[in-house]
Amino acid sequence: MPATGDATAAFDPARLAMPIGEAMFSQRAIRRLRPDPIPMADVRAMLEAAVKAPSGGNQQWARFLVLNDPERIREFGQLYHEAWWAKRRDIEGWSGPQDIPAGATVARSAMRLAGEIGAAPLIVLVLAEPPGPANSVITCAQNLMLAARALGIGSVPTTLHPDVMERVYALFDIPSRAVFHLCIPMGYPRGNFGPTARRPTAEVSYLNTWGAPVPWA
Amino acid sequence: MPATGDATAAFDPARLAMPIGEAMFSQRAIRRLRPDPIPMADVRAMLEAAVKAPSGGNQQWARFLVLNDPERIREFGQLYHEAWWAKRRDIEGWSGPQDIPAGATVARSAMRLAGEIGAAPLIVLVLAEPPGPANSVITCAQNLMLAARALGIGSVPTTLHPDVMERVYALFDIPSRAVFHLCIPMGYPRGNFGPTARRPTAEVSYLNTWGAPVPWA
Repeated sequence: MPATGDATAAFDPARLAMPIGEAMFSQRAIRRLRPDPIPMADVRAMLEAAVKAPSGGNQQWARFLVLNDPERIREFGQLYHEAWWAKRRDIEGWSGPQDIPAGATVARSAMRLAGEIGAAPLIVLVLAEPPGPANSVITCAQNLMLAARALGIGSVPTTLHPDVMERVYALFDIPSRAVFHLCIPMGYPRGNFGPTARRPTAEVSYLNTWGAPVPWA
Repeated sequence: MPATGDATAAFDPARLAMPIGEAMFSQRAIRRLRPDPIPMADVRAMLEAAVKAPSGGNQQWARFLVLNDPERIREFGQLYHEAWWAKRRDIEGWSGPQDIPAGATVARSAMRLAGEIGAAPLIVLVLAEPPGPANSVITCAQNLMLAARALGIGSVPTTLHPDVMERVYALFDIPSRAVFHLCIPMGYPRGNFGPTARRPTAEVSYLNTWGAPVPWA
């Protein structure tokens, strides 16, 4: 077993000391990652937070495949790149960088991530034992990403594409019964955390009837 | 517009001051709710936290139908009760309390909630504009529930059943295009928050290959 610092010591939740409002209001999608490795004790802290999230009937279907081996991440990165472009082909009809509008900043940032993810220091694939519905698994993924933020680690939730799923499962010996949910690349940010741009709550919330305004509308 | 205290003032994220580890490690499913009303300023605080969660391409599909009208909640409670027993019939083959094993504590607690939810002071139905995939909506729901915890408000994520969906949509004028995700009853707890029982992270996490142990296993 490699040296892992504090990861094998009992976990202390007090390590996650950031006020919850600060973590939530600065959880920006981080797609530009520094190559510096993430301490295994921090990986454990994020996972300890993840498993605490609620699941239907407390069934705890979520499973976390942690990737920190550079060679495996490099191999996976090639599949991720292929998946990203397959999604763009399906959804927007784009086949290369020249098709992406200059103003599509999120798409351009995501394209860069697709080219760089093979050099990420850490990726967590969030899967589940069946039936593992998303409403019992994504709760855990959000805890994972919030805990990352509290530790100064950036993340962004991403998906894959059917074209590559069989090869991803083969690469990591994932059994066919497992349900894939998210691919979360992680690392210390090259940019900054938050603030984030969101529609006002008054536009996405209703009171007692669909479409009826909340009092602060 | 009814008096709403601070809900119409600018929202200050500093209100969500609880350390994130404390919130996550004590986010127990709260199914026994006190009838005391939840201040609208706290409802707003939870929604402000909810919309900050990540969504694919920052598309922000999530919508929140806040129920605080006692009569509407009472009507909804009847549908929820029917839905809960329909699920038990489908999944476990139970048709009444006599079929629930004495040791099935989560099921017995959920059964009680199904009988009492009509008296909850607050329910948030989490829906989405299409396509509104769960992996972009449940992130928001988890923020909502964590913010509730930080404010001393209990919650539990629940679902409905196809038998009642059409009547639920009709009751609240929900358009058929909207995607239902979760029903979250909320209130001050009759019991206590946390701690929660979860499988050790070493049992649900793998390193670089499915089934390979993490260093703290």
